[in-house]
Amino acid sequence: MKFVWAELAAENRVGLVSLANGDPDPSLYPFRKFEFEIPDVKGRHVDPVPHWRTHQAPSQTLRAYKDAAIERLEHPEESEISLTIGDAFQYTHGAGLPATQLALGELANAFHRPPNHVVTLTLGNSDGVTKAFRLLGERGEWFLTEEFSFPGMTNAPLAYGIRWVGVKMDREGLIPGELDKVLREWDETRGKRPHVLYIVPCGQNPTGSTLSLRRRQKIYDIARDWDLIIIEDDPYYFLQYDLPSVETSLTTEDFVERYAETLVPSFVSMDVDGRVIRIDSFSKVIAPGMRLGWILSNEMFHHHLVKYTDSASQHPHGFGQIFVTGMLSKRGWGLDGFVLWMQSLCKDYQRRRDLLLEVFRNEVEPSGLASINCAQAGMFAWIKINLEGHPRYRCGDAKEVVVETGGHQVTTRCTTNVPLLMEELLSDLRVAGLIVMPAALFAIPDAEMDDVPSLRTSVYDRCSFFRATFCGTDEAIRAGMGKFGQALEVFFKQ
Amino acid sequence: MKFVWAELAAENRVGLVSLANGDPDPSLYPFRKFEFEIPDVKGRHVDPVPHWRTHQAPSQTLRAYKDAAIERLEHPEESEISLTIGDAFQYTHGAGLPATQLALGELANAFHRPPNHVVTLTLGNSDGVTKAFRLLGERGEWFLTEEFSFPGMTNAPLAYGIRWVGVKMDREGLIPGELDKVLREWDETRGKRPHVLYIVPCGQNPTGSTLSLRRRQKIYDIARDWDLIIIEDDPYYFLQYDLPSVETSLTTEDFVERYAETLVPSFVSMDVDGRVIRIDSFSKVIAPGMRLGWILSNEMFHHHLVKYTDSASQHPHGFGQIFVTGMLSKRGWGLDGFVLWMQSLCKDYQRRRDLLLEVFRNEVEPSGLASINCAQAGMFAWIKINLEGHPRYRCGDAKEVVVETGGHQVTTRCTTNVPLLMEELLSDLRVAGLIVMPAALFAIPDAEMDDVPSLRTSVYDRCSFFRATFCGTDEAIRAGMGKFGQALEVFFKQ
Repeated sequence: MKFVWAELAAENRVGLVSLANGDPDPSLYPFRKFEFEIPDVKGRHVDPVPHWRTHQAPSQTLRAYKDAAIERLEHPEESEISLTIGDAFQYTHGAGLPATQLALGELANAFHRPPNHVVTLTLGNSDGVTKAFRLLGERGEWFLTEEFSFPGMTNAPLAYGIRWVGVKMDREGLIPGELDKVLREWDETRGKRPHVLYIVPCGQNPTGSTLSLRRRQKIYDIARDWDLIIIEDDPYYFLQYDLPSVETSLTTEDFVERYAETLVPSFVSMDVDGRVIRIDSFSKVIAPGMRLGWILSNEMFHHHLVKYTDSASQHPHGFGQIFVTGMLSKRGWGLDGFVLWMQSLCKDYQRRRDLLLEVFRNEVEPSGLASINCAQAGMFAWIKINLEGHPRYRCGDAKEVVVETGGHQVTTRCTTNVPLLMEELLSDLRVAGLIVMPAALFAIPDAEMDDVPSLRTSVYDRCSFFRATFCGTDEAIRAGMGKFGQALEVFFKQ
Repeated sequence: MKFVWAELAAENRVGLVSLANGDPDPSLYPFRKFEFEIPDVKGRHVDPVPHWRTHQAPSQTLRAYKDAAIERLEHPEESEISLTIGDAFQYTHGAGLPATQLALGELANAFHRPPNHVVTLTLGNSDGVTKAFRLLGERGEWFLTEEFSFPGMTNAPLAYGIRWVGVKMDREGLIPGELDKVLREWDETRGKRPHVLYIVPCGQNPTGSTLSLRRRQKIYDIARDWDLIIIEDDPYYFLQYDLPSVETSLTTEDFVERYAETLVPSFVSMDVDGRVIRIDSFSKVIAPGMRLGWILSNEMFHHHLVKYTDSASQHPHGFGQIFVTGMLSKRGWGLDGFVLWMQSLCKDYQRRRDLLLEVFRNEVEPSGLASINCAQAGMFAWIKINLEGHPRYRCGDAKEVVVETGGHQVTTRCTTNVPLLMEELLSDLRVAGLIVMPAALFAIPDAEMDDVPSLRTSVYDRCSFFRATFCGTDEAIRAGMGKFGQALEVFFKQ
């Protein structure tokens, strides 16, 4: 991993007087001190999250001062000065403050040891993803992604003419052989062969699937064969479940390293070519309102990504950079404290996942009308409705149908009436008082790919799934699965 | 002024259970409390800024709590609950949190009483400006702006094919008659007549000029005649100088109203048609690292602007929304406290401006080689070099010259050797140890507009100016103007 800083502005060089830039004098900022009270995770023996939720956990405070003089005044015992508000709130570089890049670089190194990548700060995950799309795509080009993908991301580049090819998935995520097949059978009259794969490798949204190391290696090999750039969007990386526990009595470095080894290796960790752009986020593991994330990429991509920021929002906000730099510093959580919080947070979400599975097994599974994919990461369960058993299920020659995909309609050719039955069931669930997300909302329309209609089944024939989150309250999970089981039985008795 | 909120998500409706969205449970955010220590400006009798700069001013603390329960526990005496971290750090709406929109709407109302406009939060000024450009421009179209303008903004839409027409300026800013002339004489073979005017009405960057009310009214009338949309980019609005002082013993409302009346009316305040998009910023009056600003626009533009945010960074950060909402609330500064700080801040910058003028008058003016435009707002002085008096000054038939504009070169036709002399002088100033910004860096190239070359002078013939900021330290201003005067005399004796 390399570190790349913005060049120091010429006017900071010794001996020069600058009357060049309209930078407000930091002595005029109306900030004296910021304090952020966060959980104290120093004693590694506790599981902090459940105590924190009930307001019983000890806390510690991250502080930042207007300038070094005030910090020295208040904390004469500290040998190092924190990132000051004066520095963090001046006009800075689109890639982020050096101190924040360094802190995130150390975090990235501990988990991915990216062979030859640099850090670019973002304004959150979707800022990072949409900038990567913009970097890599031109009007009329095709991008590859999982056949079910989050429309909040995949809709973004449609505005400038990118088209999507959905690659078939199973319970374990994108199928490498299907990826290879799409590329091998690509008909160039349709446009340039896709050169970008956008993928969510852990707790994929919406299917909850996590790619095994073996699949990742295969996909990386296919990317090398076909010269694909991989956009690895990994907001759920730190929410991996069923991990072996790590001995807390280890030294800090060993503790972090052992924990990192329990997580499935990322694409960027195997990226000897510089073909992976990894997007990281604090939204799922700290809070969505952070709106601060980071990208790992090769240096050429980094420079382009920074230019997009320079000519839009200029640079990330000072609040988040102070918070993150403080949190990851030794005076804050440090890397080991961060890991401890992540471990404890995972336990909490794992408990919620297990609750959803348990309620599902009691309230839904006995009817045999649906089955569930046990997510190994993330926030989503993917529930398959066994529509083949519905009295009005039909399968036969492909027919043109119009599918509702939430806000807009897609015309496609289906061999089943799955879209119709799923629309009915969704409506019944709403009447019963439950909201879950139907698979059709996430399906990548394949109509444009449908060169030989009789040979293919539409993705909408495979839309017999609902996405249900387990990140809500226990009450919501219990009440929701109860309603689900009851409505399902009524629906199948029609 | 209207208020437009995002529709409440369906899943928040009573009686429904939602397992729909992957929203992290706010009880898991690792934040208990935020505290921001800011100046206490409640006693209106003091001029807080100079005391604050020397760390002697009293301070007050803005607080935000994870949830209402913790706030009630710590402050049982408070009747109202602040914007909680739990609410502000969830996924929210691209336009901003309702509480923050409301606070900024009240601020906007106090100063502009926009007839029929709504608030959209931005990620800072340049995010707002570049989104407005994107909203209004299509490939090949021409936008109008002042002939000298900040390239950080005007470069942004070049990437998608917008071209600029510079409108001539004088000491008081854009000349309304020149704007009308450009539109009247527009040759449609060049492309569609411009329909967008981008303008910085107060303390314009780089010229420091502020448009009088009379000019504003004329420009607005021209905009009505030619159906122009005006992008009013006004980061220096609260830094207007030489204002009459306002009686501090007035009631809060009267105090704010009287202060607002001393400021020159904005374009948005006269915008009965909804043709003004006003961009506001905290960067110059709070701190650049805020990266949080707001737009006032008609409702149709608002909905489009929000969509750009939805499909990029999603929404503004929670830190800034908590800070701004708290700062503008009665528990924080309130509107009157905000005004008091602005007044005091203006005094400080006005003092710096006056210092620069004084040093200029002592160190530079006596030679007669340069004159200065006394800025009534903002951060910049615009210094004219009287090159006509230089022994090597030449004026004659138009010739093709290549002008250095910082990083890239422009080929144009000039009737003078001003570009060459200015490059030499800039280089001499650097050698002398002073950095100022040459006018050529800000000039809107007019080569493409130059249909009848012999009849026009190039903007580069008018580039005999430097921009110097007075927002730095007294020492920089003194040393800088000293070096300037000396280098200038040497340059003219060559």
